[in-house]
Amino acid sequence: MIETDAVVIGAGPVGLFQAFQLGLQEIRAHLIDALPHAGGQCAELYPDKPIYDVPGLPVCSGSELTARLQQQLAPFQTPIHLGHQVETLLRQPDGRWRLETAQGLQFTARVVFIAAGVGAFVPRKVALDGLDALERTEPPQVRYFGVEPSTMAGRHVVVMGGEDAALETALQLVESACCASVTLLHRVDKFKAAPELEQAVRGAIAQGTLKLVIGQPVGLECDDTCAGPRLRALRLATPDCADGDTLALPLDVWLPRLGLSHKLGSISDWGLAMERKQIVVDTESYASSEPGIFAVGDVNTYPGMRELILCGFHEATLAAFAAAALVHPDRRVLLQYTTTSPRLHELLGVSRPASATP
Amino acid sequence: MIETDAVVIGAGPVGLFQAFQLGLQEIRAHLIDALPHAGGQCAELYPDKPIYDVPGLPVCSGSELTARLQQQLAPFQTPIHLGHQVETLLRQPDGRWRLETAQGLQFTARVVFIAAGVGAFVPRKVALDGLDALERTEPPQVRYFGVEPSTMAGRHVVVMGGEDAALETALQLVESACCASVTLLHRVDKFKAAPELEQAVRGAIAQGTLKLVIGQPVGLECDDTCAGPRLRALRLATPDCADGDTLALPLDVWLPRLGLSHKLGSISDWGLAMERKQIVVDTESYASSEPGIFAVGDVNTYPGMRELILCGFHEATLAAFAAAALVHPDRRVLLQYTTTSPRLHELLGVSRPASATP
Repeated sequence: MIETDAVVIGAGPVGLFQAFQLGLQEIRAHLIDALPHAGGQCAELYPDKPIYDVPGLPVCSGSELTARLQQQLAPFQTPIHLGHQVETLLRQPDGRWRLETAQGLQFTARVVFIAAGVGAFVPRKVALDGLDALERTEPPQVRYFGVEPSTMAGRHVVVMGGEDAALETALQLVESACCASVTLLHRVDKFKAAPELEQAVRGAIAQGTLKLVIGQPVGLECDDTCAGPRLRALRLATPDCADGDTLALPLDVWLPRLGLSHKLGSISDWGLAMERKQIVVDTESYASSEPGIFAVGDVNTYPGMRELILCGFHEATLAAFAAAALVHPDRRVLLQYTTTSPRLHELLGVSRPASATP
Repeated sequence: MIETDAVVIGAGPVGLFQAFQLGLQEIRAHLIDALPHAGGQCAELYPDKPIYDVPGLPVCSGSELTARLQQQLAPFQTPIHLGHQVETLLRQPDGRWRLETAQGLQFTARVVFIAAGVGAFVPRKVALDGLDALERTEPPQVRYFGVEPSTMAGRHVVVMGGEDAALETALQLVESACCASVTLLHRVDKFKAAPELEQAVRGAIAQGTLKLVIGQPVGLECDDTCAGPRLRALRLATPDCADGDTLALPLDVWLPRLGLSHKLGSISDWGLAMERKQIVVDTESYASSEPGIFAVGDVNTYPGMRELILCGFHEATLAAFAAAALVHPDRRVLLQYTTTSPRLHELLGVSRPASATP
C-alpha cells in the first residue's frame, strides 16, 4: 500500500503537468499510466508529428512535448507507475481515497486527479483460445508491447500487423541481427505505414533478412510442459490454402502489433457525475462531483470545453490550487510566481545567483 | 479608420497568443500596445529573469517567451500598433465596436479582446512646468523611452534615475562613445540596481567617462526659439546648495528613467461589469458583460481565477472559439487540430511533406 497526498491517473501531457503543479503546491504525487511509457496520446498517436498550438512552442512533436514536460517535472522526482490501469477507486471512512490497479498496486491518497484523456490505451489483442496463458509464461511467448531486441537473441520471432508499429518492430529486430529469424505476418500483402518505412521493410524482404508471410492466425499449436503450455507454431489460414486447410508457422515468440484501442474502462463505474463519457467538472477548481476527485484534460466536460492540450494545462493548474486547500488545510494557499518566489526556487532546485538578487 | 474583424488590446504573452488563436479561427486581427515593444510585463519587468511554469518550457526568460510567441504568431502577419493606448471604446449602431487611441488611431471591429494585464505601462514622468512641450520638440529633448545611442551623437545627455533602467541607459551611452558628455543624475548617491551593473557604472564614473550629479530637478531653463521652447539647462536642488538655492545643469537631451507605472486607464470607463479593477467574465467564452468584448489574462476575473500566464493562454483560446461564432455566423465552428487539419496547415504556412502523409 502506497500512502501519498495525490494520485494522478494518466501520464499524458496534462497528467505530467498536473504532477508539476502539485509539486509547486508541495503535494506529494504518484503518476499511473496504462501505457509502458509517459506521453499518452501524444507519444502514442503522433510522436513524430508536429503540434503548432502549444503556447510558446511554434512547432513541437508529440515526443518532444512529452520530453519537455518530463524535464519540467524532474525536480519533483514524482514516482511513475507504467503499465498500470486503475480499476477501483473507493472512498475510505477517513475521507481518503483508495485506488487499486488491475496489476495489483494499491494507493491511499487525499486527492485524485483523473487525467485519463480518452481512456487507457490498451493494445488490440488477438482472440484465440489459450492465448492469454502464453502472455504469462516466463519469459512470455506472446507480447503486445515494446520489446528489447537483445532479449530476443537466438529466437524465431513473428511480428504481426501491417501498420507503422508492426513494421518498425520487425525492422528493429532485423537490424539488431540477433534473432534466429524474423517473420512479418499480415493478412494481406499491403501495408498502411509511412512510405519510407514500407520501403525499408520491402528492402529487407528482398534481401531475405525479413520473411513475409500472408495469412490469418486461426489456431495455436502448443506443447504441454511441466512449466505450462509452450507455443510451438501458429496455424494460419492463407490465400493459397484450400478452404478449411491451414498452414503451420513455427515460432518461439509472437509479437502482435495491431495498434491500440482506448477505453474509459472502470472510470465510468466510480460514481462520478458524467455526460457522454466525460466527467462533469466546475471551472473554478475542475473538481468532479466527488470531493477530492478532480478531472483535467480531455476526460472532463464543462460549458465551452475544447479538447486541446493547452486547456488541460490551465485546468491542472487551478485543480492544484484547489487541492492545496484540501491537502494543506492549515496553510493559506497563496499565488506565488516561479520567477520571484524563493520557496518555489527551492522546490524547483534552482537558486538564483547571489549577484542577481535585486 | 482601420476596419478589421478583431482588435486585441495588449501585446503581452496573452495578447500575442490571442492573436495566434484568432489566426487559427480565420479572424483578422490588429494588436495594440502602449509600450514601444511587444511582451508586456514579461518583456518590461522581467525580460532576463527565468519563468519555470510555462508548460513545456522548463525554463524561459520573459524576453525568450515573447520572442517564441511572436514567432508562433508570425504566419498570420498580424499588424501591431505600438506606443498606442486605447482611450475610447464605443458600440456603433450596427453593433460593431469603434476604438480610438490617445495617439489618434481609429478602428472598427466586430470583436474586441482586452488582454491589458494590469493596465497600460506608462513611464513615470517628471512633474515640472513646461516639460510636456519638450517631449514634442523635433527631435524631442525629453525622452522617457528607449533611445538609440547613435541619435545622441555630439549631444550633452543627462540620464536620470537610480535603478537598472537608468544605469543601463547611461552605460550604453558611455560605451557608444558618441555623446559630447553623459551625466547620470540621481537624488541620492545610492542605486537600487543589479550589483554588476552598479559596479560598471561606478567604474565609468571613476574613469571620468560618466559624470555623476546628485540632485533633484526643480525647474527648467529654456530659450524661446521660432521652433518653440528649447531646453538649455535643468535647475537642480542639490545637497550642497543652501536652502532655496539651485544649480544649473546644462544639457541637450534629458532621459528620465524612473521606471514604469501601470494604470487601467480608460478601460474602467467602458461600461463593462467589473470587480476590484478586473473585468468580470464567464468561463465558457471569457466574454465580458458587453457582447463582442472579451477579456483574457490578468485583466479579467472569475471564480478560481489565478494571475498566471498559462491561464491566459486557455482563456484566449476559448474566447477565440466564441468570437468565431460571432465573426463567421455562417460557418460551424469546429475543433480542428493543428497536427492533422490541412486547413490549419495552410493558414500556418506549413505543408506536410508528401512522404509523411499516412
